[in-house]
Amino acid sequence: MTIKALGYAAQHSFSRLKPMEFEREEAGAHEVQIDVLYCGVCHSDVHQAENDWANTVYPCVPGHEVVGRVAAVGAGVTLHKVGDLVGVGCMIDSCRSCEPCHAHEEQYCEGPNSWLATYNGPMVPAAKAPDGRNMYGRDNTYGGYSNVVVVKEDFVLKIPASLPIEAAAPILCAGVTTFSPMKHWGVKAGDKIGVLGFGGLGEMALKIARALGAEVTMFTTTEEKIAEATKLGAKGVLESDTEALKSLARTFDFILSTVPEKHKADPFIPTLKRNGTFVAVGELGPMPGYNNQEVIMHRRSLAGSLIGSIAETQEILDFCAKHQIAPDVEVIPIQDINKAYKKVKSGDVRFRYVIDMASLKQEMAEA
Amino acid sequence: MTIKALGYAAQHSFSRLKPMEFEREEAGAHEVQIDVLYCGVCHSDVHQAENDWANTVYPCVPGHEVVGRVAAVGAGVTLHKVGDLVGVGCMIDSCRSCEPCHAHEEQYCEGPNSWLATYNGPMVPAAKAPDGRNMYGRDNTYGGYSNVVVVKEDFVLKIPASLPIEAAAPILCAGVTTFSPMKHWGVKAGDKIGVLGFGGLGEMALKIARALGAEVTMFTTTEEKIAEATKLGAKGVLESDTEALKSLARTFDFILSTVPEKHKADPFIPTLKRNGTFVAVGELGPMPGYNNQEVIMHRRSLAGSLIGSIAETQEILDFCAKHQIAPDVEVIPIQDINKAYKKVKSGDVRFRYVIDMASLKQEMAEA
Repeated sequence: MTIKALGYAAQHSFSRLKPMEFEREEAGAHEVQIDVLYCGVCHSDVHQAENDWANTVYPCVPGHEVVGRVAAVGAGVTLHKVGDLVGVGCMIDSCRSCEPCHAHEEQYCEGPNSWLATYNGPMVPAAKAPDGRNMYGRDNTYGGYSNVVVVKEDFVLKIPASLPIEAAAPILCAGVTTFSPMKHWGVKAGDKIGVLGFGGLGEMALKIARALGAEVTMFTTTEEKIAEATKLGAKGVLESDTEALKSLARTFDFILSTVPEKHKADPFIPTLKRNGTFVAVGELGPMPGYNNQEVIMHRRSLAGSLIGSIAETQEILDFCAKHQIAPDVEVIPIQDINKAYKKVKSGDVRFRYVIDMASLKQEMAEA
Repeated sequence: MTIKALGYAAQHSFSRLKPMEFEREEAGAHEVQIDVLYCGVCHSDVHQAENDWANTVYPCVPGHEVVGRVAAVGAGVTLHKVGDLVGVGCMIDSCRSCEPCHAHEEQYCEGPNSWLATYNGPMVPAAKAPDGRNMYGRDNTYGGYSNVVVVKEDFVLKIPASLPIEAAAPILCAGVTTFSPMKHWGVKAGDKIGVLGFGGLGEMALKIARALGAEVTMFTTTEEKIAEATKLGAKGVLESDTEALKSLARTFDFILSTVPEKHKADPFIPTLKRNGTFVAVGELGPMPGYNNQEVIMHRRSLAGSLIGSIAETQEILDFCAKHQIAPDVEVIPIQDINKAYKKVKSGDVRFRYVIDMASLKQEMAEA
C-alpha cells in the first residue's frame, strides 16, 4: 500500500525546485509515518540538487534535517507513538551487519550499499556496489522537502520538548556533524578550539564547543562576522590576518573546518598544539597540498569526519536542550526555496534556512 | 678545557665530505665522552650536508646514529661508566622545561631553540628564536662522523650486549623513527600495517611491526624489492599496481610512509580502515593535495611524526635485542662516504650504510 505525498523536487541539475506529487510506501511493521513540520536547508542540498558530486538521481527531493509529528506507526513499533515530536537526519537505514554498524557508527556503514541516505538513495548505488545489487530495494529516496516521510523507527530521533521546533531541525545535520568529531577527538572543558567557516555548521560548532566548556576562536572572512563571533562568546580572527595567525602558533587542541569547498589547511596547521588535529568536515572533494614539516614537527594530523551516528544525533539533541542552545534560523515558506539556494551559494545566509512545511498546503490546495 | 677531534665535514653545500680537525669541550660534570666505533649514514645526513632544507651551518659534520664506548665520564655521572657500550641518536639535549620535555617527548621540545641536534646545532637557531638567543651556547654541533663525541649523560643510550654493534647504530634513528609512531598510534599484534618505501627506515618498520605481531604489506617500486619483502615475512605490492591497491580497500589499521620526498597519499588512503592513519615520517617538505572525500568517508587521518623520545629510543634498542632483530647494514670505511652518499641519493643502498670509525685512524696517522 502507498500513501500520496507532495514535495519540492529538482528534475535536472539545471532546473529550479518545483512541486512534485509522488507516492511513498506505507509504514511497515517497524516504521513510523511522520507529518513534516520543518525541514532545514543544508549546503549539501544545493550540491546534491545541482549534481555537484556527479551522483544525483533525479527527480531529487532534498531535505535531511526533518522535524515532524508521528502520524502513524507500524504494528511492531515500540520506540515512538502517534503524536510524538520526532526528527530524521541524514540516514534512514544501514546494513546493520558490518563492523561500524555493530559499533553504532552507522554513518561509516561498510555494507555493500553503505547507509541509506534520507534522500538520493543509498550512498553506494547498485551500479557501484560490489555485487551490483541494492540491498535497500530503493534507488532514489525522497527527502524532507515534503509533507510526509516514512522511516524505520530506530533511525527516528526524539526531539526534546524544550527545543524550539524549527531550530531543532539543523541540529540533525549541522549539529551532529560538528559534535561527532568533537566527541571523537575528545574536546573538553578548557580546550582551545579553532573553527573555520561561519555558516550553519560553524555557528553550531561555536555553540556546542562553548557549551562543552572550550574556548573558541572563529576564523572568518569579514569584520561583520567577527562581531557576530564576539556576540556569541568567541574570539574572531580574519583568515587573512597573518600576524594574528602567527601569534596563535601552537594554540589549539583541535580545529574544525566547516568550509564547503577546497581550502588550504597550511595557514592553520602551525596554530595547532602538539598532537593537535585539523578536521575538515565540509569539503567532500580535493584538498590542496600542505607542508608536512609543520605536521611532523609537532605530530599533528589532518583528518575528516562524516555527519554522526544515530546515537550521537540523539545525544546532541539532548545536549542542546540541556544547555539551551540552538541554531539561529530563518524560517521560509517552501515557495522561497530557489531564492534561498542562491543565498546559500553566495554565503549570504545567517545562519540556517528552515522551511515551514505548512506552506506546502498552498500547493496541495492547488493540486 | 678541550679535546682534539677528527671528523669528516662538508665545507659547502656543493663540496664532498673531507677530513677536518676540530676541538670539543671536555666532558662536564654530567657528560660522557664516547669513542665512536660506528656511525650510521641516514638519508637526512645527505639532505643536511647538501643544504636541502636551507638551514645548514658549515662546516657540517653529519652523523646521528652513533655507537661507541665510554672513554671518560664527568664527576656527576651516574648512568654510565667507562667501558660501557653506548649510543647517541638525533638529540643531545633539550630545554627540559616545556610541556613536551616534561612529558618525556623531547623530540617535540618547545623551548626557544627546541632540541639540540647531534649535528647542525639546535633545531631553532638564535636567528629564528623568539628572543634571538641560543640557550645551548652552541651554534653548530658536530656529529658522529668523528672519532669522539661528548654528550649529556641522560641523552646517552645503553646498547644491549646481544645486538651486533654495527647494526645497533641505525636503530638510533631509523629504528626509533618508525617505532615511535607505531607506539603512539597503538600498533599491536594482529593489526594490518602498510609500509611505503623500502630503504633504511622501511626495512626497520617491517621488522619492528612483524616483531609486534602485525601483518605487514610493503609498497615498493621493483619486483626485486617484493622478493626482499617476502624473504622478511611481509607481503610486497608494487605501488603502481592499481588493481592490487583496489583489492586492498579498507585493509590497513595504519600506514607508515618512509618516502623521503614529495609523494601522493591518495593511492593509499582508500586502503586504510575506518579510523586508520597514514603517517609520513620521511618527507620534511610539501605533500601534494589529497581527496578529502576518502578521508571523510571513513574518518581517516594523515599525520606526521618526528624521530622518537630518548625513552622510546632505549625501548626500541631493548626490543630489538629481545626479538633479535637488527637492520641489514653494509659497513664502509669513512673514505667511501662520498660514494655512499651517491648511492643513498639514487636509492641503491640495501639497506643502511654504517661507517666503521676505525677507518679514521688512517687519517689520524696522516694528520
